[in-house]
Amino acid sequence: MKIVFIGSGNVATHLSAALKKSGNDIVQVFSKSLENAKLLASKVKAEPVDNIRSIQREADLYIFSIKDDALQEIVNSMPYTSGIWAHTSGSLPLNLLSANKSEGYGVFYPLQTFSKSREVDFRSIPIFIEGESYHTQNILEETAKSISGNVRVLDSDNRCYLHLAAVFANNFSNHMYLLAAEILNHHDIPFDVLKPLIRETAAKVMEMDPKSAQTGPAIRYDEKIIQKHIDLIKDSDTKEIYKLLSKSINKHSK
Amino acid sequence: MKIVFIGSGNVATHLSAALKKSGNDIVQVFSKSLENAKLLASKVKAEPVDNIRSIQREADLYIFSIKDDALQEIVNSMPYTSGIWAHTSGSLPLNLLSANKSEGYGVFYPLQTFSKSREVDFRSIPIFIEGESYHTQNILEETAKSISGNVRVLDSDNRCYLHLAAVFANNFSNHMYLLAAEILNHHDIPFDVLKPLIRETAAKVMEMDPKSAQTGPAIRYDEKIIQKHIDLIKDSDTKEIYKLLSKSINKHSK
Repeated sequence: MKIVFIGSGNVATHLSAALKKSGNDIVQVFSKSLENAKLLASKVKAEPVDNIRSIQREADLYIFSIKDDALQEIVNSMPYTSGIWAHTSGSLPLNLLSANKSEGYGVFYPLQTFSKSREVDFRSIPIFIEGESYHTQNILEETAKSISGNVRVLDSDNRCYLHLAAVFANNFSNHMYLLAAEILNHHDIPFDVLKPLIRETAAKVMEMDPKSAQTGPAIRYDEKIIQKHIDLIKDSDTKEIYKLLSKSINKHSK
Repeated sequence: MKIVFIGSGNVATHLSAALKKSGNDIVQVFSKSLENAKLLASKVKAEPVDNIRSIQREADLYIFSIKDDALQEIVNSMPYTSGIWAHTSGSLPLNLLSANKSEGYGVFYPLQTFSKSREVDFRSIPIFIEGESYHTQNILEETAKSISGNVRVLDSDNRCYLHLAAVFANNFSNHMYLLAAEILNHHDIPFDVLKPLIRETAAKVMEMDPKSAQTGPAIRYDEKIIQKHIDLIKDSDTKEIYKLLSKSINKHSK
């Protein structure tokens, strides 16, 4: 497949590398910043482009991997092309790409947290596919299967809920690590001491459901410890977070 | 070492097994419930006891591994003994055991989330030690080193902050998994699809600090998505959690 990437951020970086590795041809990388386009294009042996009018019209697949609020504008300024257009957003609907400028359109959503500096193994990353037709869906599905062993079809509504759940599972749990690191840092205790606990917390829910895995003062409803912890926290937002999450844990235990 | 366990919960279960395995002799397990005492005692070849007056007086170490709010009462009703008394609580001070009924007293706090049904590798679990004297501290340290490669001395004040940080890193991040599972469940999406994300979220902070690892709408301050997510959440507490955590992520990004 000849693939054009529109965007050069974390998702574009990892996804284009995986698609290249599985034998696809990344023909162009578009970014408004030529520097960013060049950076990614050099990795996947593509042509860097910063002018949207220079985008090739004859590719098989155009992957839009840019910030959600920038997508509509890019779609409006895109030329007519052959092939399929697909975006990689968890929250944008399929029909955002229904501009009648391509042969088909769909969604290609890899559910993972990507940072440029960190390698990921794409084989285990779930990819969620949607297409405006069975034909598009099949092409996207085959492409996804070439890089991942975990490909599913999911409609736009359900994908929104999946993205919301991912915010809790990833963004918010990572923020819990950050708040923990901050508390330790104030008392000169290295973050390293928490690593076995963090590893085990994640490992536990690979086998148990999160409800059975829950331990600690909130699930035991140990009011003395809860109050002591609230008193120890200095930052008022963090205090509020502690109260609200303890209350929520307790509510869910019933 | 001859060791008596007071308590038969998750921590007592895993800790007594590890100490037994490293060559110590677990002589008794006390629990107010004879059934629970028997259950654990049979695993570590100890004598089960449900009457506190039947506790042996000549052991080397008495490990109090019971609920925080039950410890004072047990200490009050304990007989005089030889050896050292140590509790396993993250939040109780050292001096709770200063009852002058033993030769020394201290703290033996393994920082991990224990569930009875799940094996843990004690070698990688950090154990935090405190003693009323160097002598006690040394004995507890040597005992801890026989089961873990990660032993540190930490005073009661700092241990409280460590425990507080652990609540964020474990209890609260596990609750994030639960809220995510709940959202998926309402839309018939299996929790399994989140597992690679949860695994990677934890794996990332083994190498990066949590601030650099943060991704998602809150750190990008993508107001449209944040508002959309708030609208999608039905439960009012969960809605509040989403708002507060997004605000906190954003505050910490500055």
